[in-house]
Amino acid sequence: MTELERLIALLAKLPGLGPRSARRAALHLIERREQLLRPLAAALTEADRRVRACSTCGNLDTADPCGICADPSREPLSLCVVEDVRDLWALERSGAFRGRYHVLGGTLSALDGRGPEALRIGELLERVKSLGITEVILAMNATVEGQTTAHYVAERLEPGGVRVTRLAQGVPLGGELDYLDDGTLKTALRARRPAT
Amino acid sequence: MTELERLIALLAKLPGLGPRSARRAALHLIERREQLLRPLAAALTEADRRVRACSTCGNLDTADPCGICADPSREPLSLCVVEDVRDLWALERSGAFRGRYHVLGGTLSALDGRGPEALRIGELLERVKSLGITEVILAMNATVEGQTTAHYVAERLEPGGVRVTRLAQGVPLGGELDYLDDGTLKTALRARRPAT
Repeated sequence: MTELERLIALLAKLPGLGPRSARRAALHLIERREQLLRPLAAALTEADRRVRACSTCGNLDTADPCGICADPSREPLSLCVVEDVRDLWALERSGAFRGRYHVLGGTLSALDGRGPEALRIGELLERVKSLGITEVILAMNATVEGQTTAHYVAERLEPGGVRVTRLAQGVPLGGELDYLDDGTLKTALRARRPAT
Repeated sequence: MTELERLIALLAKLPGLGPRSARRAALHLIERREQLLRPLAAALTEADRRVRACSTCGNLDTADPCGICADPSREPLSLCVVEDVRDLWALERSGAFRGRYHVLGGTLSALDGRGPEALRIGELLERVKSLGITEVILAMNATVEGQTTAHYVAERLEPGGVRVTRLAQGVPLGGELDYLDDGTLKTALRARRPAT
């Protein structure tokens, strides 16, 4: 295997890149050594060296505790539980949440043999208890696994007396009814609210 | 900008990756340091260090002349002219051509101000003349720029008396007429051939 073939094979392992786009990406990189290839090699090495999971919340950052956990302006008593860092970033981009996070590191999955001990649920219970958290928002994905996990986490939290909420489900902003799946429509109809 | 943001910004510059898939790719890499992140960083550095354009044909390889130019089993008198290395690779994958290549390095483009001197056309004429090439196959893309370039190259080669051919155009294998654009259908109809 040549250097180019090895590079292409590795690029093809990235989500979103198949064999064809990996070939295009490799050529793109070779044609832009100064502007892209070398900076990317350096950024990978730097990320490897410096990025760590926050030991408090599981977020990825170069500092531990991470920037969010260390930010004194964030509400300390409201925790948002997410499946992974991707979801944390999505919520941060929305700017709608000013508390702190707890990254579970995945979902429960009977199929993949992932039980509660594989997720950071014990750490969550511990954190809620020791910090006197007042509200836990379960922000799992609206998938079967996500909702199963949310249900499990809610049951574990309940005895502690903390307020446990979850994201509303319904028609997304800009959503056209004709294009929505039946499940979303049913959920939105069942959870209908006063119009004024 | 943090290390992660820099990595994501660079990944997003790869063709085929947008901001969202670059974020996913960055997380994918961080979660697979041993298997993917470090090997990719190493492969980029190795490719940077060792991959060069072949001074004869323009192919990318660690050797110069490249593996194809140096292969004595390839027909020496048949040259296939392509726009870029991507196209050379596509033809090699097909296994249909056993001669050698000449990579132009792009197409003529009035819009982008790319004239003949920006392409390796002089080198092509020189190679055809000095090696006594008997056939030049123009394998440009079936785009306006590709065909303009093919036309220009053919005109420059003609005085030398070499046989100049181009790829056939028509219905692609597995192509359903109903899904083909009008241009392809017209071309295929005009270039129709005896059925037996």
